[in-house]
Amino acid sequence: MMETVGALGESRVLRRILDRLGHASGALVGPGDDCAVLRGGGDLVVTTDTMIEGPDFRLAWHSGFELGWKLAATNLSDVASMGAVPTALTLALACPRETPVELLEQLASGMEAACRALAPGCGVVGGDLATAPVLTAAVTAIGELRGATPVLRSGATAGDIVAYAGDLGLAGTGLALLFREGADDTGVAHSEALAGLWSEHPEAMAAQLAPTPPVTLGPSAAHAGATAMLDVSDSLSLDAARIARASGVDLAFDSGLLQAGFGERGGEAVSLDAMLTGGEDHGLLATFPDRSALLDGFVRIGEVRARAEDEPRLLVDGAEFVPGGWDPYRISLPGM
Amino acid sequence: MMETVGALGESRVLRRILDRLGHASGALVGPGDDCAVLRGGGDLVVTTDTMIEGPDFRLAWHSGFELGWKLAATNLSDVASMGAVPTALTLALACPRETPVELLEQLASGMEAACRALAPGCGVVGGDLATAPVLTAAVTAIGELRGATPVLRSGATAGDIVAYAGDLGLAGTGLALLFREGADDTGVAHSEALAGLWSEHPEAMAAQLAPTPPVTLGPSAAHAGATAMLDVSDSLSLDAARIARASGVDLAFDSGLLQAGFGERGGEAVSLDAMLTGGEDHGLLATFPDRSALLDGFVRIGEVRARAEDEPRLLVDGAEFVPGGWDPYRISLPGM
Repeated sequence: MMETVGALGESRVLRRILDRLGHASGALVGPGDDCAVLRGGGDLVVTTDTMIEGPDFRLAWHSGFELGWKLAATNLSDVASMGAVPTALTLALACPRETPVELLEQLASGMEAACRALAPGCGVVGGDLATAPVLTAAVTAIGELRGATPVLRSGATAGDIVAYAGDLGLAGTGLALLFREGADDTGVAHSEALAGLWSEHPEAMAAQLAPTPPVTLGPSAAHAGATAMLDVSDSLSLDAARIARASGVDLAFDSGLLQAGFGERGGEAVSLDAMLTGGEDHGLLATFPDRSALLDGFVRIGEVRARAEDEPRLLVDGAEFVPGGWDPYRISLPGM
Repeated sequence: MMETVGALGESRVLRRILDRLGHASGALVGPGDDCAVLRGGGDLVVTTDTMIEGPDFRLAWHSGFELGWKLAATNLSDVASMGAVPTALTLALACPRETPVELLEQLASGMEAACRALAPGCGVVGGDLATAPVLTAAVTAIGELRGATPVLRSGATAGDIVAYAGDLGLAGTGLALLFREGADDTGVAHSEALAGLWSEHPEAMAAQLAPTPPVTLGPSAAHAGATAMLDVSDSLSLDAARIARASGVDLAFDSGLLQAGFGERGGEAVSLDAMLTGGEDHGLLATFPDRSALLDGFVRIGEVRARAEDEPRLLVDGAEFVPGGWDPYRISLPGM
């Protein structure tokens, strides 16, 4: 018989989740008290991100493990994009009473596995359980700068090169495939096509459902002198426009460099449109003062130019590109 | 015309919220980048807590301002209960598209006001906006120990005195009044009786809807030598049993001391049952080695005794008391 969180009760659900979690090396006190205690030191970064069943994921497509992996990975990536090393996550989890406990256990295992793979030493140090109409998970990530200067969005200067590290366009390609083959005519998600999609489009499915952002490259880029950096979450074009605005410059992409660097991954063709507007890439978009600073893992995709008009702009092959991507309050997804 | 978040879009909603927030004195970089940056130093504490429309609050009873206040206050209280000084909050906020922007602005104002009143210098340093079927807010709070040893649940020793600081039983009394007079026969909340309840039961309404935990007493208690401490959120009896279990001792309450200390507040009579099982008090339950360590603001309510049986127990006037209170996955509220 399937155990639900309602049948098991808070303290036993919590115990099951904690059993799946490892130790964060910077945690002096882990889960179980009012707060976790973290070892002090240099300056810190903190970020928070929420995933909600429906707008952000569908359980017909995501396993609990993948969901936990993605939750951790997307927050680890935000920490990395400041040039910091992730050290601790907290998890605020809310779900209906009829939720299977196993789903939450898998979610915890996925978070733990993502920490081990992407940010060794980091772990879940605390959290909260609550009830909600749909599965809702808010993760907060904390990282240590360890002497690095935080890399903001505002430091790009004309003449810098623009580079990207990580998957690009694959997550958006994966989402489009899921909506095309993993949903019925009214947009309601189902699992029937999932095995086929994974076997035919493994790179796109993995990028969408369990992304592997280049977390360790963030601190390396900071030490190599990156002038601006961010985690591409809404889309390359939207997030590039944020660097342009914050830095008061134009960002100019070269579609040839984008195509050469990211047009194909493991047999999956990725369109320029998916790269620019797909979203959920969770790679690092950074600017560097010159090519010699460019690290292994980063691909040059354009350059920073002095602002040609009053407003900072994004250019692709010299022509203005109007950014597009994800706005949670405005975009209607099928089946919502 | 009422502006909704759906009509305004993410970036403008965010701007409106940020306009309501002040500066956290420890923040080197505030909201607007991938992460906030916090000044480093000694050891830190971190905690997270979620409030969800329905299980945790009803908009018929809570103004946006009160809701924001309560969100901040309950998390500040968790930080205080470790003996730490709160320095930064993050807010992960999700809501339906038809939510009025004004509600979110008021919520931000309430968080800001609670920080100013309860933990000056602390503020919201970052956050996230998303869509959800009901208003959902997860707050993470970070605090600095500033040389204090973190006060855990596990340090109570036989012979210690047990003391409490803050409101007790009032929040539960307020919730009972709201369910009795602020809901229809099927348990659906309405606002009709709210003005009357506030004028007749101001202390109970304030304790339930916008609590004022004794945040600054937390670090003071740590420096005064508190051996165990926690924030009473689920109920005095449930949380006292947690100290008993973690410390391997019996906690013995004296009902006369509870009645004398907390039986009446501003004309509101508070029952012993409300004190022991009401919940949402957000005061500090602490143990001190002797009376001389007891700080102003703490009221002695019992003592720590050597465990009389195999299992640590909670006693009231010498008799075992079975703890009762809040389990989000098991308790059914009217109208849910």
